[in-house]
Amino acid sequence: MTAAGTAAGTANGTAVGEVTGPAPHPDRLLPADPGVRRLARALHAEVADLPIVSPHGHVDAGLLLQDAPFRDPAALLLTPDHYVTRLLHASGVPLQELGVGQGPLDETAARAAWRLLCRHWAVFAGTPVRYWLEQSLHDAFGLTTRPSSESADSLYDAVADGLTTPGLRPRALLERFGIRVLATTDDPADDLAAHAALRDDPTVRTRVVPTFRPDRYLEPGRPSWRADTDRLGDAAGVDAGTWDGWVEAMQLRRAHFRRHGAVSADHSHEDVGTQPLSPADAARLYAAARARTVTVPEATALRRHMLLEMARMSTEDGLTMTLHPGVRRGHHGPTSARFGPDTGHDIPLPGAFTDALRPLLERYGTHPSLRLVLFTLDESVLSRELAPLAGFYPSVYVGAPWWFLDAPASIRRWRETVTEIAGLRRTSGFIDDTRALLSVPARHDMARRLDAGFLAGLVAEHRLDEDEAAEALVDLVVGRPAEVFGL
Amino acid sequence: MTAAGTAAGTANGTAVGEVTGPAPHPDRLLPADPGVRRLARALHAEVADLPIVSPHGHVDAGLLLQDAPFRDPAALLLTPDHYVTRLLHASGVPLQELGVGQGPLDETAARAAWRLLCRHWAVFAGTPVRYWLEQSLHDAFGLTTRPSSESADSLYDAVADGLTTPGLRPRALLERFGIRVLATTDDPADDLAAHAALRDDPTVRTRVVPTFRPDRYLEPGRPSWRADTDRLGDAAGVDAGTWDGWVEAMQLRRAHFRRHGAVSADHSHEDVGTQPLSPADAARLYAAARARTVTVPEATALRRHMLLEMARMSTEDGLTMTLHPGVRRGHHGPTSARFGPDTGHDIPLPGAFTDALRPLLERYGTHPSLRLVLFTLDESVLSRELAPLAGFYPSVYVGAPWWFLDAPASIRRWRETVTEIAGLRRTSGFIDDTRALLSVPARHDMARRLDAGFLAGLVAEHRLDEDEAAEALVDLVVGRPAEVFGL
Amino acid sequence: MTAAGTAAGTANGTAVGEVTGPAPHPDRLLPADPGVRRLARALHAEVADLPIVSPHGHVDAGLLLQDAPFRDPAALLLTPDHYVTRLLHASGVPLQELGVGQGPLDETAARAAWRLLCRHWAVFAGTPVRYWLEQSLHDAFGLTTRPSSESADSLYDAVADGLTTPGLRPRALLERFGIRVLATTDDPADDLAAHAALRDDPTVRTRVVPTFRPDRYLEPGRPSWRADTDRLGDAAGVDAGTWDGWVEAMQLRRAHFRRHGAVSADHSHEDVGTQPLSPADAARLYAAARARTVTVPEATALRRHMLLEMARMSTEDGLTMTLHPGVRRGHHGPTSARFGPDTGHDIPLPGAFTDALRPLLERYGTHPSLRLVLFTLDESVLSRELAPLAGFYPSVYVGAPWWFLDAPASIRRWRETVTEIAGLRRTSGFIDDTRALLSVPARHDMARRLDAGFLAGLVAEHRLDEDEAAEALVDLVVGRPAEVFGL
Repeated sequence: MTAAGTAAGTANGTAVGEVTGPAPHPDRLLPADPGVRRLARALHAEVADLPIVSPHGHVDAGLLLQDAPFRDPAALLLTPDHYVTRLLHASGVPLQELGVGQGPLDETAARAAWRLLCRHWAVFAGTPVRYWLEQSLHDAFGLTTRPSSESADSLYDAVADGLTTPGLRPRALLERFGIRVLATTDDPADDLAAHAALRDDPTVRTRVVPTFRPDRYLEPGRPSWRADTDRLGDAAGVDAGTWDGWVEAMQLRRAHFRRHGAVSADHSHEDVGTQPLSPADAARLYAAARARTVTVPEATALRRHMLLEMARMSTEDGLTMTLHPGVRRGHHGPTSARFGPDTGHDIPLPGAFTDALRPLLERYGTHPSLRLVLFTLDESVLSRELAPLAGFYPSVYVGAPWWFLDAPASIRRWRETVTEIAGLRRTSGFIDDTRALLSVPARHDMARRLDAGFLAGLVAEHRLDEDEAAEALVDLVVGRPAEVFGL
Repeated sequence: MTAAGTAAGTANGTAVGEVTGPAPHPDRLLPADPGVRRLARALHAEVADLPIVSPHGHVDAGLLLQDAPFRDPAALLLTPDHYVTRLLHASGVPLQELGVGQGPLDETAARAAWRLLCRHWAVFAGTPVRYWLEQSLHDAFGLTTRPSSESADSLYDAVADGLTTPGLRPRALLERFGIRVLATTDDPADDLAAHAALRDDPTVRTRVVPTFRPDRYLEPGRPSWRADTDRLGDAAGVDAGTWDGWVEAMQLRRAHFRRHGAVSADHSHEDVGTQPLSPADAARLYAAARARTVTVPEATALRRHMLLEMARMSTEDGLTMTLHPGVRRGHHGPTSARFGPDTGHDIPLPGAFTDALRPLLERYGTHPSLRLVLFTLDESVLSRELAPLAGFYPSVYVGAPWWFLDAPASIRRWRETVTEIAGLRRTSGFIDDTRALLSVPARHDMARRLDAGFLAGLVAEHRLDEDEAAEALVDLVVGRPAEVFGL
Repeated sequence: MTAAGTAAGTANGTAVGEVTGPAPHPDRLLPADPGVRRLARALHAEVADLPIVSPHGHVDAGLLLQDAPFRDPAALLLTPDHYVTRLLHASGVPLQELGVGQGPLDETAARAAWRLLCRHWAVFAGTPVRYWLEQSLHDAFGLTTRPSSESADSLYDAVADGLTTPGLRPRALLERFGIRVLATTDDPADDLAAHAALRDDPTVRTRVVPTFRPDRYLEPGRPSWRADTDRLGDAAGVDAGTWDGWVEAMQLRRAHFRRHGAVSADHSHEDVGTQPLSPADAARLYAAARARTVTVPEATALRRHMLLEMARMSTEDGLTMTLHPGVRRGHHGPTSARFGPDTGHDIPLPGAFTDALRPLLERYGTHPSLRLVLFTLDESVLSRELAPLAGFYPSVYVGAPWWFLDAPASIRRWRETVTEIAGLRRTSGFIDDTRALLSVPARHDMARRLDAGFLAGLVAEHRLDEDEAAEALVDLVVGRPAEVFGL
């Protein structure tokens, strides 16, 4: 086991059967052609050390407030990360053996879970999970040993040792990684006390901002919706029993988020349909939803009107509106029932934006205060719909490759598909979308490397001069998040 | 400012802050790998100087007839080109500041619009607009200065100067660019007097041919349809008040176009649905449409029958039938209302050909006289539907990448996707589809370079011998337009 | 004409106008970049000579049992292969001139058909057909002459000569090609006598196994369905006049197939919809279908329930379930009527798996005995649906690129799209799906070369170590078929 000089700096002997590799290669992810690689290397150097701005993600603010050491290697890198657990599940490992949905694991269970990850290392070949884990093990712990059945225990020990050092506590990582801004994702009823405490703590130099995520309040067909809206009303101090009360409650909670530094409101529904209702119809359907007499089409109609209202509010309060549609959540009911949501079986659906978003865009698409970021898991809509929309509407940006598509070849396809139609500036800038704090720098670095490679390709084909490419890359890293999220 | 030796040959001093670059690189757009690039360079050399055949485009015949100098740089390169204005609009530039929809601009307004283009030059990085403009500025005006706020005025002056020279009048450009055939796009009621005059003018060596574009007469649900069909009947000298009259009028106008050199009829509707009606039903729905009592589904049914009729006529008169479906025109109503159509917010829709075209293909798909070119803006249908159709039906050709997809990486994807299923010969040959005369050679050269690169890749992988690749490339440039459009 | 040393070893003189090329290049299909190519070459060498396992294809067991010489070059390489005949048909060659649907051709007709193939050689440039034919001519006959009008007759003679040698009989090819396992495709009512005879023949070292393909019995809306189910019942020795009888007959025939070595059941319907019916409803709809009073939606509902039943049976008998959905069969009715099915005009449809398969996956998706391989002709579902499904469900594998997509660039796109989401191990391994025995080794070698190139790319980008890439490639060639088909 090799330990490069890092904060953790744990060094152990190499056990039999372990393969110790070199540190991650400085040219990783850059184009293979030597000429293009040279160009890409020079471009990447311009942005490699720029601070990280993370305008959308899922790190928990409480984790940063408490700043407790991570419990164990499984809790840090495995159990809570559905990118990792889903592929192990597909390979025949039951989720319970990975600790999913079981609260804190004892040392035996955590180590057993970790061994399963290491034993199945080959299933991650070619995936970004492999790339992020490898990079995280090196950067945070100085480890370059390849995970395997043989190396599992010594890796576990090395990581566990590292976690006891102060340099690997959550706040220390924020500093060490140069994270300037970190957005969390939060329920509109949240009091945001953790955010306030972090903001008021002078030792926290990262700007930790909440994100307004009101999905559950826009789904009048869900069983919990009535109770949810009651809770929303309570948080806002208004009666959410009527349509007008719902609107007022939303506005008040958005204002609360705005005061706590929020820069965006995030929405994820089955589709992005928007369709205005008359005030009377909205009130009527809302009342029916409260009375649980609403039909499925009515609930959908109300949701589409609500989404339109959220766009209106964004034009007024300036929260950037981000849309992450098109996923069948909890595809495997039995797994949802046993292990809860976000357990690896959310499966995408066909995307459709052109007609679905038209009512919203006809009303607000050229409004000077709206910024609307459209994400998709259906690559076929990129050249067909998203890039053409972002190439006309000043409010619209094409969201960075997301979730299943946040990976090297997918990012390349995305950049190649979108750029020719919408240019570089109509894109959102990179978004890590992760709850895995340790992987944040590896993810941002991956995006920077791939954008450097993409721009180097344009230079190599004489479509862009080298100085323009460098300027464009800095704009992608610094300019896009600043413009798109008002940071 | 650098002036290479060209017809315009305007040379000015370089202002402070201007960046003067080299002329467009001879290897631009060729593959980056040195070995493949060598092969591609040799292939491209075989076709670089072949004449241009443009079987589908939107240059105005009147422009060629009048042969007046282009008014100013904005009128030449900016205001009428929705490829350019849409990205500026997306970047926050109001269309009115670009002169859209305002008729001729005075010098102050034209220069102001031009400055906006130059100031926002970075938004075009990575897009084909950037490539075409750069190439046009060099080839026509000898300019290699990079557009910017600093260089805007001197570029404007240089282009404006150039436009006063005889070598930059429209007809001179036809000669200079080696355009052998140029197809325009025309209304069936057009008398085609401009085409006749050009044909009869011995100094015009380019064959300027009209294209029959009857969309509006096939949309019985549109408010203007009744008046349109009246006008069609008048042009044909028949009463278009009945279904039989409509059919006869269409046939007569197609014959008129044929006599004036037309080689194709072009169609662009929301979908390519074709479905036969009985003669009685056709007559009945036609009458209802005339009486404005037709329902939306009936109007669609009639349109689908009409499209089938157009295919039948193509089997009889030999006009190649081209289909450009799947666009939501005028997506942003307020912009349409203020600035008119073709102002940058036509947004594609999902494509569907397999079942939609089946009635047409069952009737006429193996007819020896039919040639049917299918274009799409939905890349997902290329391997799924278009290439399989073109790989069986002798009438069907896959149309070249169109509109948003007429760009280097998109063209590569298109060629890679289509070729393995349908081969090279079942494609249409390049189509520039442009109203920007100045960009015609840059567009054709772009396609030739990309095809050279694609074929070089096949040679490098030992899938094709070099002599075969050269033959294939010549066939794409010369053979395809000749066969597909009977030129 | 050049004859490299092969079993056939026919050598003739080179006629005027013939082009004799070199043997297929050892680096064919490997990446063009010299560094990546070196890596790929080394990887390919590790698997180049491994035996062929073909778990899904369409070679006829009777052909192997009779072991008669192939009749003539057209019967061997042209007439029965719709990959070849469709592109000739698209190029204007009538199917009857190729011998399609006419039974054995006499020498004159066979030679005339062969000449048409050679004359139109250019239409195959860039397609896999060209690659396979070229490779087959070399590997089996030692021929490197390029097909053309000039070389047609001498090529015909050389191939015809070769076919008289014992080394080119079907069974000799199995040996020579190192085919360890070959799956055929068979009707559930088939007695599998040919398979039994081959199994019992000690001189046949290839394991020739049947595949259960029950499509026709799951389509209650088809005119022949009642007679088909009668035949199924007869084969099973039960009365298939009731729903319970149908289920029992299917189970008995699957057991019969299992006893004859079958490892999978293959299904190809318009969609993969699965939806449970109550036993009473199933019985009722079945009776209505027998009575020919079933409606179209009822027939579809019954088919979807039947498919669910097939999944249940797979969990019980262990036959791997493969799904090949989404094709409009017999798109051109007149051609179907005259020449029959599989004549080149089956055209794909949009794919949809997420919701369609959900009932099946909620029931059986995590069942330890189910293996379910999902194939698609709609590339847009790869990253959107198939890879996410295979990345969670332990039963699901992404099927190798199929039919129109079984070609170099398509395979690369497939691997690039699927791997980042589902890894390498959640894929099926290569499947040749061919009835052209002679092309089997060329097809498997093509896949091995492309996978070597893909993995070399990961190594070149430092995403995988070289030893891991080698291990992964062996797993794709040996491990995947073993796991996915229980071989």
